[in-house]
Amino acid sequence: MEYKFAERVVGLKPSAIREIFKYAADPAYISLSAGNPAPEAFPSEALAEISAKLLRDEPILALQYSTTEGYGPLRAHLTEYLKKTHNVGRDFDDILITSGAQQVMDLFTKSILEEGDTVLCEAPSFIGSLNDFRSYKAKLAGVPMDPDGMNIEAFENALKTEKKAKFLYTIPNFQNPSGITMSREKREKVYALAKQYGVLVLEDNPYGDLRYKGDYIPPIKSLDEDGIVLYAGTFSKVISPGMRVGYAVGPKEILQKMTVCKQGQDVHTNIWSQVMCYRFMTEVDFDAHLENLRKIYTKKQRLLLDLMEQYLAPKGVTWDPFDGGLFAWCHLPAGVDLAAYTQRALEQKVCIVPGTAFLTDESEPCDAFRINFSTPTDAQLEEGIKRLARALLFLKEK
Amino acid sequence: MEYKFAERVVGLKPSAIREIFKYAADPAYISLSAGNPAPEAFPSEALAEISAKLLRDEPILALQYSTTEGYGPLRAHLTEYLKKTHNVGRDFDDILITSGAQQVMDLFTKSILEEGDTVLCEAPSFIGSLNDFRSYKAKLAGVPMDPDGMNIEAFENALKTEKKAKFLYTIPNFQNPSGITMSREKREKVYALAKQYGVLVLEDNPYGDLRYKGDYIPPIKSLDEDGIVLYAGTFSKVISPGMRVGYAVGPKEILQKMTVCKQGQDVHTNIWSQVMCYRFMTEVDFDAHLENLRKIYTKKQRLLLDLMEQYLAPKGVTWDPFDGGLFAWCHLPAGVDLAAYTQRALEQKVCIVPGTAFLTDESEPCDAFRINFSTPTDAQLEEGIKRLARALLFLKEK
Repeated sequence: MEYKFAERVVGLKPSAIREIFKYAADPAYISLSAGNPAPEAFPSEALAEISAKLLRDEPILALQYSTTEGYGPLRAHLTEYLKKTHNVGRDFDDILITSGAQQVMDLFTKSILEEGDTVLCEAPSFIGSLNDFRSYKAKLAGVPMDPDGMNIEAFENALKTEKKAKFLYTIPNFQNPSGITMSREKREKVYALAKQYGVLVLEDNPYGDLRYKGDYIPPIKSLDEDGIVLYAGTFSKVISPGMRVGYAVGPKEILQKMTVCKQGQDVHTNIWSQVMCYRFMTEVDFDAHLENLRKIYTKKQRLLLDLMEQYLAPKGVTWDPFDGGLFAWCHLPAGVDLAAYTQRALEQKVCIVPGTAFLTDESEPCDAFRINFSTPTDAQLEEGIKRLARALLFLKEK
Repeated sequence: MEYKFAERVVGLKPSAIREIFKYAADPAYISLSAGNPAPEAFPSEALAEISAKLLRDEPILALQYSTTEGYGPLRAHLTEYLKKTHNVGRDFDDILITSGAQQVMDLFTKSILEEGDTVLCEAPSFIGSLNDFRSYKAKLAGVPMDPDGMNIEAFENALKTEKKAKFLYTIPNFQNPSGITMSREKREKVYALAKQYGVLVLEDNPYGDLRYKGDYIPPIKSLDEDGIVLYAGTFSKVISPGMRVGYAVGPKEILQKMTVCKQGQDVHTNIWSQVMCYRFMTEVDFDAHLENLRKIYTKKQRLLLDLMEQYLAPKGVTWDPFDGGLFAWCHLPAGVDLAAYTQRALEQKVCIVPGTAFLTDESEPCDAFRINFSTPTDAQLEEGIKRLARALLFLKEK
């Protein structure tokens, strides 16, 4: 039988990363293409203990239906925590617990975006979000990145030319895939311009806690006295992505619509996981845990930098500075074709993600690829970088 | 600030059940309005044991990112299990694990329904699904119910008049809210008519395992040699709703689109829960567990029938026969206004859901209300039914 699909999904393709994942699942390949937390970063023992107690003493709490808005104590604790640590949240704001931060992007877009409206986004940007915007028939308008965040002139220009711009999607900290962090000055300018042009801001902050050097910069949402920023947070990078617990902080009216949409989408987020996140935040030393994560990843990041210096720099590969997160963004030497290089890397049995996968228009020229350093072991990282160097050699010989 | 919401969500309201839940949360009220499994129906000890072992021996499996399609062993086991027990699934079908069955309705609608297309559905029907269809700007066309399922003439008439009918939404077993089960003959006719008119069938089967009397009837999907039925199943009523694990079985092409949409919606379903469901199905005697559930609910159902016979029948309340599920569907005596009665019941501190909440057009006349018998304790059920009788008396005196 031939099926007639809704127009909104006809052009949707599985993301390029997913295709590369098929190779990455083969143990003969070294995957530098994922975005998974390091296995040693999971607080497994503490979680096992909390879970055992929960299922022994209050199984019905963990297993019964719950409310769409989320587990009350988690919502209350997060509200206070985000206010204290990031100055996020005002009286006009509320909080919604979601099934991972990805659901924040989806519910916000469903609530706000009319088909044909424009989403302004950083170019490159996180492919999972871009594909979701596309599934609501958004027009995507990419704003190029400088080393300190979006190019502000280009942003203002886009605000002027994109008459149906509805919101800006930004990952201000250690952006995926570029690793770039938006400076404090640019955050202020972005906020002021969004306000001036009547455009909302969707601020996605999955990596904010994973800063390895440099000074803390408050989120754009911390500036929000006007109710124009929706902030997305997640436990995926700091407790567990398998649990799928994220949250949205934003104006009550917007969250009300998102809550009704969520009711139709999955009723509520897995309640065992919500209770686990709440208890982990409140019963374990959460700050010490975050500090430990930063230690693990700082070590991995330094190893990657050393390896790139040793094997890739001599071959003309460069990379943008990155103060945190899970990714390095590398540029090929002039004249090397990205698609051909990605293919050669696969032949050398190492998986990277070509930068084109993160562009609003995949046919635009791109010289960059993304390396993840959180998932591979130290030995895999070393072997992977060697193979990447070899792939370059091989390519140039051709 | 005033927000401009997408047209698709402007008219969306939280479901009437949600509003009633606010009262139901007050311990002074007896709630007969929920749809929660009985607390004693949760296999808490077995789950605690499986979870402890999982988090001790394979924490990374439970905590790391997983694939959008779902946990491989669960998909493989369910595929075999559904084929064996229900003759569900052919070579052209595939399986997708979802965050509760509710997500099946959402992903299917997003993939298939163009704005303005018609969804044919039983009238009354499950409000959560109806609201989700509405969020894609579906036109809902209700088909009235007979005691053995949808009225077939009305269904055929709707197929003829609704030129943009895209799919039929049906809950053939112990339907929510009516408790009605579609006969084998009607399932065959529904399938044949859907095929004839080129309309897909979305078959939602949350209560199929909860039959307390009468003979098993195979799902509509068991007839599907043409790839026109999408089957939605769930662990919510047989293991735990808090876990949010459901599944879809349907034609590969449709599931591919749904998978891409799911990737944008929540990446994947909570993997701890998926592993738990798999291990519970394969390491515990699942058939014995289902048998035990049926014992628990048969007892509750009989108690409700006795109580209704004793307190409500003398006042002229009638109910449709129901062979399974969690709900009774009661009709008020002629001349009693449903809205006024629901209000009086609230004043008597007992919560029911008025039948209007389940109609495609809430302004249509309705004399019925829904009673849930799975959630209250025996004592609460008795007191609740007494209060419902009192509310009727009170109303008639007015």
